[in-house]
Amino acid sequence: MTMPSIVDVQAAARRLRGIAAVTPLLPMRELSAQLGRPVFAKAEVLQLTGSFKFRGAYNRIAAMTAEERAKGVVAFSSGNHAQGVAAAAQMRNVQAAIVMPSDAPRTKVEGTRSWGAEVIFYDRATESREAISEALAAERGATLIPSFDDPYVIAGQGTAGLEIASAVATQGFTLGAVVTPVGGGGLASGLALALEAAVPDCALYGVEPEGFDDVARSLATGAIVENERRSGSVQDALLTPRICERTFSILRRRMTGVTIATDPEALVAAAYALKHLRLVVEPGGAAALAGVLAGRIPAGDGALVIVLSGGNAEPAANVTQA
Amino acid sequence: MTMPSIVDVQAAARRLRGIAAVTPLLPMRELSAQLGRPVFAKAEVLQLTGSFKFRGAYNRIAAMTAEERAKGVVAFSSGNHAQGVAAAAQMRNVQAAIVMPSDAPRTKVEGTRSWGAEVIFYDRATESREAISEALAAERGATLIPSFDDPYVIAGQGTAGLEIASAVATQGFTLGAVVTPVGGGGLASGLALALEAAVPDCALYGVEPEGFDDVARSLATGAIVENERRSGSVQDALLTPRICERTFSILRRRMTGVTIATDPEALVAAAYALKHLRLVVEPGGAAALAGVLAGRIPAGDGALVIVLSGGNAEPAANVTQA
Repeated sequence: MTMPSIVDVQAAARRLRGIAAVTPLLPMRELSAQLGRPVFAKAEVLQLTGSFKFRGAYNRIAAMTAEERAKGVVAFSSGNHAQGVAAAAQMRNVQAAIVMPSDAPRTKVEGTRSWGAEVIFYDRATESREAISEALAAERGATLIPSFDDPYVIAGQGTAGLEIASAVATQGFTLGAVVTPVGGGGLASGLALALEAAVPDCALYGVEPEGFDDVARSLATGAIVENERRSGSVQDALLTPRICERTFSILRRRMTGVTIATDPEALVAAAYALKHLRLVVEPGGAAALAGVLAGRIPAGDGALVIVLSGGNAEPAANVTQA
Repeated sequence: MTMPSIVDVQAAARRLRGIAAVTPLLPMRELSAQLGRPVFAKAEVLQLTGSFKFRGAYNRIAAMTAEERAKGVVAFSSGNHAQGVAAAAQMRNVQAAIVMPSDAPRTKVEGTRSWGAEVIFYDRATESREAISEALAAERGATLIPSFDDPYVIAGQGTAGLEIASAVATQGFTLGAVVTPVGGGGLASGLALALEAAVPDCALYGVEPEGFDDVARSLATGAIVENERRSGSVQDALLTPRICERTFSILRRRMTGVTIATDPEALVAAAYALKHLRLVVEPGGAAALAGVLAGRIPAGDGALVIVLSGGNAEPAANVTQA
């Protein structure tokens, strides 16, 4: 198993330079006053395709050979990885086929198609997206782009961590902690690699949906355990059956703690971001903010950075939140 | 009459460095494809206090003497300038009193108070905010901070223009045109000063609310004319009775053209920004985008930058837009 390192994150940053957005680090005034420390939001909702997923997808595709690229790519995703792969593929002139659950948010399906990708649906409850995707990739000779279990994908997501470290330092603060939503652990692992190199003393917290706390249970038991359910949360971006050995081994070494956000808390957090930051954040993308607002992240010194990981919300969900 | 120049804009940029946000320039993919040129949004809704107004207010207060600052500042505003002045005053330890219309959006009143300012209401239909503010300033020996008729305020707003020129060049494009909402002309004048120095060939378009087209009529007749009405548009940020000699003289020299946005068009533009950019933009702040979406900005070469000037929307307005 190839494990990514900080060198891979730095290589990813070079590949993404001038391609991915350097997303802004926005001050959160009210939360800073409440928590007695500088609090910032890392606005990954302003990344191309509306989530951090573009970083890893582009890094993976940019590292493929010309021969591999000619045969196309396949990915499975509940939505944000789909759009990230579709956009990255289009930008590198690669054909993309995306396997999506039939109950994926309409916005994400439309977004994926708008980047020129072919969308293939499956039933989240009865079919295996892994099996469908692997069969498709084998049939076409295409490369499967995993949503998190890949060293290039993890390294790409980690570039957000380098940006956080750099922006906090530029503003004259010491980075104390980063809080991130966790699904399969690709973003959290990438952040871990970037932060252990750039700010070794920085704490790293993860927040996962209530009822889908496989990461917390895996870290507690020391072995990967699965979520019982596959669907049933508005935090759809984080509904991964299980993490992988690759992300687990990084997270167990570097994660300071993992907590949960309930669905109502995630919706309140999304509404909070809409009001205070003027940003549309999807419920899953607001999980870290939800964890902070619910008081589940331990107090500490130095700047606290909350990752708002995705903003591909359904319009209907916004109305509910307002 | 002291007229600001590019030197004042550059001085403002130095005062604002590390204080104001360098707001992101976000690519607008669908519009770029539709218009056949690179289109970007300058997201001033992500500026401190949610609009560009902080730039000018901070620049004005930072240029005051210690003696002047000790006596406080007074400002009148429909909301965004109020918050800009309140925040800048608090950051420089200056007392601020803000005269606001009694029908000002609740969000803006709350925002102003949250920065520690005293709010004094007046009736937009029957009272003169100028007279009330001047009397208050005289009584306290305080400095009146105009919302646009001031060289420091204009120069401060112009820093957004320097950022646009720099960011477009960094991305490898030639800046062809900038489109901005126009009320009193402070932002438009500041942009004009910045752009004529940085990108002399760049076109500059203004968009004002239908029924409040005093700038277009003033430019057409060669003399400042007033709007007949004082209220009655959802684009409340742009409802200024008239522009001033200072902004008029800059705009008549530099403005390529001025067009209008209807209220429905401004609401559609705000909804468009919410969906495609994941940003909350108030209707007046979306006027320039509305003008572009309505096809009222002439075609041209080079990158087109649309200024999203403010995002202090009422939550109720958002629901209507969605």
